[in-house]
Amino acid sequence: MKINEIGGEFALIDRLARTSPTNHKDLFKGIGDDAAVIRGFFPNQESLLVTTDMLVDNRHFRRDWATAHQIGSKAITCNASDIAAMGGTPTFLFVSIALTENTLVAWMDDLYKGMSEVCRQYGIVLAGGDTTKADSLSISITLLGRVAPQNLCLRSQARPDDLLCVTGPLGGSAAGLTFLTMGQNPPERIRAKHFMPGCRLDVSPAIAPLAGAMIDISDGLAAEVNHICNQSGTGAKIFAEKIPIDAFVQKAAALSGKTPIAYALSGGEDFELLFSISPMNWRQLGEKGVETFVVGRVTESGSGRVLVSPEGDHVPLTGGYNHFA
Amino acid sequence: MKINEIGGEFALIDRLARTSPTNHKDLFKGIGDDAAVIRGFFPNQESLLVTTDMLVDNRHFRRDWATAHQIGSKAITCNASDIAAMGGTPTFLFVSIALTENTLVAWMDDLYKGMSEVCRQYGIVLAGGDTTKADSLSISITLLGRVAPQNLCLRSQARPDDLLCVTGPLGGSAAGLTFLTMGQNPPERIRAKHFMPGCRLDVSPAIAPLAGAMIDISDGLAAEVNHICNQSGTGAKIFAEKIPIDAFVQKAAALSGKTPIAYALSGGEDFELLFSISPMNWRQLGEKGVETFVVGRVTESGSGRVLVSPEGDHVPLTGGYNHFA
Repeated sequence: MKINEIGGEFALIDRLARTSPTNHKDLFKGIGDDAAVIRGFFPNQESLLVTTDMLVDNRHFRRDWATAHQIGSKAITCNASDIAAMGGTPTFLFVSIALTENTLVAWMDDLYKGMSEVCRQYGIVLAGGDTTKADSLSISITLLGRVAPQNLCLRSQARPDDLLCVTGPLGGSAAGLTFLTMGQNPPERIRAKHFMPGCRLDVSPAIAPLAGAMIDISDGLAAEVNHICNQSGTGAKIFAEKIPIDAFVQKAAALSGKTPIAYALSGGEDFELLFSISPMNWRQLGEKGVETFVVGRVTESGSGRVLVSPEGDHVPLTGGYNHFA
Repeated sequence: MKINEIGGEFALIDRLARTSPTNHKDLFKGIGDDAAVIRGFFPNQESLLVTTDMLVDNRHFRRDWATAHQIGSKAITCNASDIAAMGGTPTFLFVSIALTENTLVAWMDDLYKGMSEVCRQYGIVLAGGDTTKADSLSISITLLGRVAPQNLCLRSQARPDDLLCVTGPLGGSAAGLTFLTMGQNPPERIRAKHFMPGCRLDVSPAIAPLAGAMIDISDGLAAEVNHICNQSGTGAKIFAEKIPIDAFVQKAAALSGKTPIAYALSGGEDFELLFSISPMNWRQLGEKGVETFVVGRVTESGSGRVLVSPEGDHVPLTGGYNHFA
């Protein structure tokens, strides 16, 4: 039986978890969130966060499209985004790189520069790594972080009647991809969103103490809403017309023939945050000056996960990206 | 310029370190030891250890030689060995796997069983990971651990007149490789040493509080002695006839035409420990019933790193394995 016959990569992680010891008194949250949460660390009750990601040449990045600097920058940013999604602060970085014999030193130096720029931006310190030769290039990142108990946001913490909010317009990165696959040069801002995305560590410290569940949008809004519902045991109702969509998505949609909403629901790597929050706390967040967009509501489990179209039709909320689909 | 022109993988790690922020008050030791040491964690003054390794198909393992179970087992063991070399105890594991579309679920399950067996043996708990599709198979491991201050052994802690000791016979894993590359079936014990090596977490807790520097022997004795000397600012004198060599190495040497001592000096993946220790502490270790083998002495920096042959000749201590050499 091949991997795609069992449901792809997500099923595979579950399979490893079923085989291995996964319980420990200090492991507050293991597999299944943006980062693992390990207690018993910092004297001030903070927990240790650990997230890890593997980025593969021609899957997660294309060297004919992106510069090494952009690839390095994005590799760190997508992990910093996982720490942001837990309500935490990134700290120490470990970088393992498998590279081919023909990799140029100048390319590696450029990759490192992209990485170190993001490290400086977020106060991340390089603490270790590994380098090895391989037939194809891949980069494995492990990023540590710390989080205070009152800031910790798990995917399982959504409650019925919470609002569901996002921190910014969606679909921009996927729109960039459309331009590129169509052989067109993307508009500069979309190019930046695709190749040098930021993460929302600028607003996550303000959101975290007020939010319930939080997750970063790396596989499209639909998939992330479903992750929160699965772990919180809830339903969700998302209103299509409330989803903020990047202005350039319309142009990409015209090229690809997809709808703009499909970009927001299924387009990956926006690295905005999706979170649940009580209406009262959401108002408080606004008073702090943090602009976020209400896209729907958490509902009871029995109500399912639905997308309400601009015409008022209810359709199942599907989409997202599975590497083996 | 290509990677092998700048001195290979070790030079590459230095290059990343030069570009990036690497200093933090809590980072007691970053790049350059078996694991990073991060302070300010556990309430009882223990430090957090983090080690990471990337294993690549056809470089670090061969699927036509090793079963998935063996590959999984060894992947965890070599990281647990890094934690042992710091004087620590392994705790939480993160596994990222890049696999091909054709990878069989049964193969993955077998890999996971090998991993989880070692986890159970050493009390390691799986806490997260990532899975992605790629053109070739690779496995990236991050293993956390903890260490009490009095047990922490850095590579930089060797002092002139310390003894240099190893925990067991060397060259066995490389001997296994000789049999395999010659198309011969290795003797069972050598087969096990090559495919299912153990690590020395059984003796490291007894050695650590008495030792100075410690390192695991993954690239051959010569390379590891040089690592300790580089970081401690010392020389070393190793006596060839004192190096314990696995009994089967003689047979492999007869096949390959190399000398048995070359296996010990340059053969990788024995996962025994090399450590420096004062003569007084070494006697104390023996009284505890821990058998170790004195192979040489730490000397002043100016004396260089020398190998004393059975005939009394002094030759430079070279060898070891560089993935880009």
